[in-house]
Amino acid sequence: MTTDRAGNQWAWWGDPDSSGPGVVAGSHLDSVPDGGAFDGPLGVVSALLAVTALRDRGFRPARPIGVVNFGDEEGARFGVACAGSRLITGALAADRALGLRDGEGTALADALVQLGHSTDVGRDDETLHRIGTFIELHVEQGRSLVDLKRPIAVSDSIWPHGRWRLDLLGEANHAGTTPLADRRDPMLALATAITSARTEAEARACLATVGKVLVEPNGVNAIPSRVTGWLDARGPDEGGVLALVAAVAEAVGVEATNESFTSTTFFDRALVARLARCLDDAPLLSTGAGHDAGILAASGIPAAMLFVRNSTGISHSPAEHAETDDCLTGVDALVTVLENLSG
Amino acid sequence: MTTDRAGNQWAWWGDPDSSGPGVVAGSHLDSVPDGGAFDGPLGVVSALLAVTALRDRGFRPARPIGVVNFGDEEGARFGVACAGSRLITGALAADRALGLRDGEGTALADALVQLGHSTDVGRDDETLHRIGTFIELHVEQGRSLVDLKRPIAVSDSIWPHGRWRLDLLGEANHAGTTPLADRRDPMLALATAITSARTEAEARACLATVGKVLVEPNGVNAIPSRVTGWLDARGPDEGGVLALVAAVAEAVGVEATNESFTSTTFFDRALVARLARCLDDAPLLSTGAGHDAGILAASGIPAAMLFVRNSTGISHSPAEHAETDDCLTGVDALVTVLENLSG
Repeated sequence: MTTDRAGNQWAWWGDPDSSGPGVVAGSHLDSVPDGGAFDGPLGVVSALLAVTALRDRGFRPARPIGVVNFGDEEGARFGVACAGSRLITGALAADRALGLRDGEGTALADALVQLGHSTDVGRDDETLHRIGTFIELHVEQGRSLVDLKRPIAVSDSIWPHGRWRLDLLGEANHAGTTPLADRRDPMLALATAITSARTEAEARACLATVGKVLVEPNGVNAIPSRVTGWLDARGPDEGGVLALVAAVAEAVGVEATNESFTSTTFFDRALVARLARCLDDAPLLSTGAGHDAGILAASGIPAAMLFVRNSTGISHSPAEHAETDDCLTGVDALVTVLENLSG
Repeated sequence: MTTDRAGNQWAWWGDPDSSGPGVVAGSHLDSVPDGGAFDGPLGVVSALLAVTALRDRGFRPARPIGVVNFGDEEGARFGVACAGSRLITGALAADRALGLRDGEGTALADALVQLGHSTDVGRDDETLHRIGTFIELHVEQGRSLVDLKRPIAVSDSIWPHGRWRLDLLGEANHAGTTPLADRRDPMLALATAITSARTEAEARACLATVGKVLVEPNGVNAIPSRVTGWLDARGPDEGGVLALVAAVAEAVGVEATNESFTSTTFFDRALVARLARCLDDAPLLSTGAGHDAGILAASGIPAAMLFVRNSTGISHSPAEHAETDDCLTGVDALVTVLENLSG
């Protein structure tokens, strides 16, 4: 096992430095706060099991096969999702990354040093050159495969998605003595943002969520001086997502500050078609969630994803689940794919 | 200076234990987070200045005169307002008080021990018997005196007021993959609570505020599993306040959990009339805020309040303000009142 400069962990069967770029499978082991057991780990564990199965049956790959665990995919600590893959591709600049701070004020640079890592985390061509093709197996984050009665899908694209911050300013005052007419209460604007986000998303067949709110001073008997709400917006097309955000911002009368935005990511069309064909014409799904496979695809590496049926349809929660049979079907699918791509 | 069993600080001119109950003036020195400089300290400082003025002019009080600084009036650390006065009157039971915890989990009992205080904080009759009359001078927490063009008012009552908790439950899920129709998003119920609180308060000429909100897990890309909102409600009559809370709870479809409620407090009618008379027919104001004077009044001690004009009308904020001339007029008023009541 080796660790690249961004802290991503790699295991290789064969030597991609001497034999040319390999076929890599993997995902991530980190999770969101109060998350579930499948989002991330299923892809890493399935890749290790698939390699074991190939070795047990005496398969001799013509190309090296790698397994990867990408670091900090959820961005739970430093706020940037897919930090590990973004760093090696250069999508996240080293300068910006090193200055990111966690909730306790610790800079990523200091956290790296504390762990004995170098802070030399810029674009990593040495690592990128080893990746010929990337396949990320992941638990589905919705109910499509339940509805389709199929255990496995191939993903062909990731929706455009982004995060915007709404800074709602008011005037701190006493809840017990300030007449309603004299108030500048930013909590009312938050209510407008929440309801507007839902209405505008419904009108455009998009998704919009206000999942994070910070209130200052957050006292029961104090009209807030400031409420900050974050808007997560996604949808099948970029125009619809941006129109949704503009409509919410107009409804609350503030500018929406964009914190991140990723345009539609299309996975390699030939690779997607090849995977679907060798997996009994698996259905194709697009997804609203960002993934390391999307970061690699956007950097020009042929990549695609396999989704395993999620029996509850729930994600980012302890209730997310995949039945054991479906997990094993996922491993078999990965065996088939790795055999096909590296044979 | 002496400290009673609840930690309230007392200074006496004369001996109330030998000469009978005295006339007490004072307020509190603590503040809310991000509060202003006047709410509390103005009453303590003005009382000390008034006593100094009386001594300087050779006044000989027939009754002892006391100055008090009540502890933890705002409840910023342990969540119970007027804790110092509630403890000595028994309105806050010692058992409940000792078990209160601050935001870091420290129990009030442990905080008392760390400061070298006893945990014997039950009803304190020895202290109560020293208080013949209590006058609390306080910066006004609104604009009434600005509108009336008067520097000083006498308060005749405190509105009924209380706090209710709204526990809004949902289902954690991924913001990027969960169809709107499949969501149980408690943030939508929060929006309903905020707008309903405002609408219902307007309809009843009451005040209602959602000033504190906690979101779990509070992640940008996570539909919350739980949102907790606190509703502060007050108004001229108890029926209106309770109807307002019931209407908000019905709008969001949950029970509102009452955390505290105080009925209308009327200050001693004869005392209020006497103060207004000796202060050039000062106007009478009722207030929506709780005060230590209200706690003492509810325990049967003759008490009243003087309000000093607030030039901004703002309270619980660094912007709260009283002009120096008005502060000095407040000290003069307190001199007049103490002279009248202790002569």
